[in-house]
Amino acid sequence: MIDKSKQVTTSLILANDRLLFNGHVDGNSKIAIDYIPPIGDNLGYTSLELMLLSLSSCVGTALLVLLRRQGKVIEEFSIKSDGTRRQTHPTAFEEIHLYVSVKAQGLTPSEFEKTLSLAESICPVWYMIKESTRIVIHHQIAN
Amino acid sequence: MIDKSKQVTTSLILANDRLLFNGHVDGNSKIAIDYIPPIGDNLGYTSLELMLLSLSSCVGTALLVLLRRQGKVIEEFSIKSDGTRRQTHPTAFEEIHLYVSVKAQGLTPSEFEKTLSLAESICPVWYMIKESTRIVIHHQIAN
Repeated sequence: MIDKSKQVTTSLILANDRLLFNGHVDGNSKIAIDYIPPIGDNLGYTSLELMLLSLSSCVGTALLVLLRRQGKVIEEFSIKSDGTRRQTHPTAFEEIHLYVSVKAQGLTPSEFEKTLSLAESICPVWYMIKESTRIVIHHQIAN
Repeated sequence: MIDKSKQVTTSLILANDRLLFNGHVDGNSKIAIDYIPPIGDNLGYTSLELMLLSLSSCVGTALLVLLRRQGKVIEEFSIKSDGTRRQTHPTAFEEIHLYVSVKAQGLTPSEFEKTLSLAESICPVWYMIKESTRIVIHHQIAN
């Protein structure tokens, strides 16, 4: 049994004669991964969509842990993300925007902003891409 | 309709009162995302697993496109990946290893290695994390 706090493992297998992969980690449903036409067939998530979900879930996890430690009860929480790609190779993200919506009684904008900067500093995915990509976080708070 | 060659969008919504998220992109099955106990409940992929799948599918896609352009017929193709995490915050990957297995008639190790270095140079995800993380690619070729 792998200790995921130390090491993480995944596997990927080509599933058709084009670019469809099945991505997998033990104990989870397979993830269909593909690329967009005409190169691929749009039959699954693209690599860059998985990157955005990786980043937003990492920021989300850090935020929730920190807000709850402050005694906040989170009633609703979501993050939409979008990334703009460079138009030359490698077509990496030039800029990523995360839109965080949170509903928690008594949460103030200044409390949220303080928590957000702490969350950024502990999120591994943020740390790994912040040198190459500008990341902007927007937020909407409901009480 | 979004042109994914320019812009990519995802969404994430908290799905229980702990750290389970549903990640989603239109047209695809939802991805369950969670963290490991005791903080989370291990009910889905972790953010860092999604990061590894993002990287390995990106490298895999670039490799397949380039190998096929050289006239190779890919009979089997898979990538296993593992990442070792730092033991202090942020617990990002210190090092990632990708293990590529490919079966293609007539493919030689030197052809593969040349193709691999071209694939690295066009893979967006590689580009985004290469400054922060050492990435090592191993390969096994069958004819």
